Amino acid sequence: MTPRKIELFVPAITPFAADLSVDTGRFVAHSKGLLASGAHGLAPFGTTSEANSLTVAERMSALEALVEAGIPAEQLIPGTGCCAAADSIALSAHATKLGCRGVLMLPPFFYKGVSDTGVFDAYAQVIEAVGPGLRVYLYHIPQMSGVPITLPLIERLIAAYPGVIAGLKDSSGSWENTASVIAAFPQIDTYSASETMIPENVAAGGAGCISASSNVNPAGIRALIDGLNGPDHGALHEQVSAVRRLFEGVPLIPGIKAAVAAQKNDPEFARVRPPFVATGSEHAADIADAVRIAGAQDRE
Amino acid sequence: MTPRKIELFVPAITPFAADLSVDTGRFVAHSKGLLASGAHGLAPFGTTSEANSLTVAERMSALEALVEAGIPAEQLIPGTGCCAAADSIALSAHATKLGCRGVLMLPPFFYKGVSDTGVFDAYAQVIEAVGPGLRVYLYHIPQMSGVPITLPLIERLIAAYPGVIAGLKDSSGSWENTASVIAAFPQIDTYSASETMIPENVAAGGAGCISASSNVNPAGIRALIDGLNGPDHGALHEQVSAVRRLFEGVPLIPGIKAAVAAQKNDPEFARVRPPFVATGSEHAADIADAVRIAGAQDRE
Repeated sequence: MTPRKIELFVPAITPFAADLSVDTGRFVAHSKGLLASGAHGLAPFGTTSEANSLTVAERMSALEALVEAGIPAEQLIPGTGCCAAADSIALSAHATKLGCRGVLMLPPFFYKGVSDTGVFDAYAQVIEAVGPGLRVYLYHIPQMSGVPITLPLIERLIAAYPGVIAGLKDSSGSWENTASVIAAFPQIDTYSASETMIPENVAAGGAGCISASSNVNPAGIRALIDGLNGPDHGALHEQVSAVRRLFEGVPLIPGIKAAVAAQKNDPEFARVRPPFVATGSEHAADIADAVRIAGAQDRE
Repeated sequence: MTPRKIELFVPAITPFAADLSVDTGRFVAHSKGLLASGAHGLAPFGTTSEANSLTVAERMSALEALVEAGIPAEQLIPGTGCCAAADSIALSAHATKLGCRGVLMLPPFFYKGVSDTGVFDAYAQVIEAVGPGLRVYLYHIPQMSGVPITLPLIERLIAAYPGVIAGLKDSSGSWENTASVIAAFPQIDTYSASETMIPENVAAGGAGCISASSNVNPAGIRALIDGLNGPDHGALHEQVSAVRRLFEGVPLIPGIKAAVAAQKNDPEFARVRPPFVATGSEHAADIADAVRIAGAQDRE
């Protein structure tokens, strides 16, 4: 058995123009910059990307722009899980047709208290409709979705669709849960949602991370991944932890966008769609410190 | 000041065909039946309608079918609140153009822990984009949306859009909250989400109810509204409460659909979309009892 490849996928932020339309030019430029800075791939249209504030058409158009700009589809795992199955199917089929490595799929997330059987049926409906070529990364983020991806559900999905269920992103913040998923399902790639957990994730047999703050610190996180077995691993871990800690008191998504804007010296990147509000001056010092530690990211 | 009209609006269920497409024929028939049975109007595409499992195009098409079937648009308050503003705008503009009395609008509901300012911005974005003719009923259902409509938020919205904010549906289950909204904002119509609260709602100055179980018991609820000041009000309240109680141990939306199927002797009405699962035989007795108390509803 070859060792698992450890990777960083970035849930790239979605820049908006003054009229709040998707700023495709800045989206492509930022995405290419993340890859040039060391990210192995992108997970656009995740939570950090404000994906749920985008329409189906906006997501398709922006994904096409990445591929047309020369980003290999094999490096892309776009988010495609919506409340309505037909929307999830349309986005997943579109990504599959473009040749994306897979899709990061939320369960339908309006209705709470639904059964594992109901969530299984929801995933099955999309998988059956999209057909060959689809690879699904399950997205466990119960504090936002309200619909957990439980271990029994993962087991059922892998049993029913063994070549389709490719991985899981655990955004629960519970290392115990991540460890349980890795231990129970070594055949899939399990990603942590924080770069601070990379050492434990990798030691347990996980696949790396998909992290909001990797929009700001891709080079640092890549250096940690590459240096995990080297003499500097402690210092590399401290660097990514120091950046991450500075966002703890800041509204995460507006804060990440403000930091990217600061790094690029381009305030346009800071704009958010409602229900988010741009960060205020009370967070400027933390953001500036995070940017100072992470360094500039425009390596394009 | 004329006394407020007390009304029942039904969040009509959305029937599905075997392939899970919207069964427009049964949707129109059920909707007309509800009005014939005494409902003052319909609030289609609410939580009970599985609205969040429908696409924007499906909702528009189904709403048009109601109007084309002769239901006056003035009796319709469709749900239009989605995660993406452009979707909420499209649905709200469509409903306004059709002449609907208003729209029942969820806040964007994926992101949790957002500020009142962010939610205000989200509503304002839709209101400004749709323009004249729009009337908004705010939809407070924090146990599903995760995004409460707080009193300070209502105050800001009414102050900014006094002719637009027409009402609020309180699905929180907290009578204290409903009473606070009615007391603070007598200029809007506040609906309870359970018919059992109609006496308190009306006594406090509310506008009636928009209730899941009114799909099953519209005649009973209408009788209660009409008889509130009459000698039978106690018995009328006990009838609606008895029906409602029988759904307490049953998954609500699948249970309501099963009950409608039983009333109409048409099992097609029981079908649900994932993430719901049709009710099992363990709930059959409660559903049968609810139907027996409510009586048959096909008065078309």
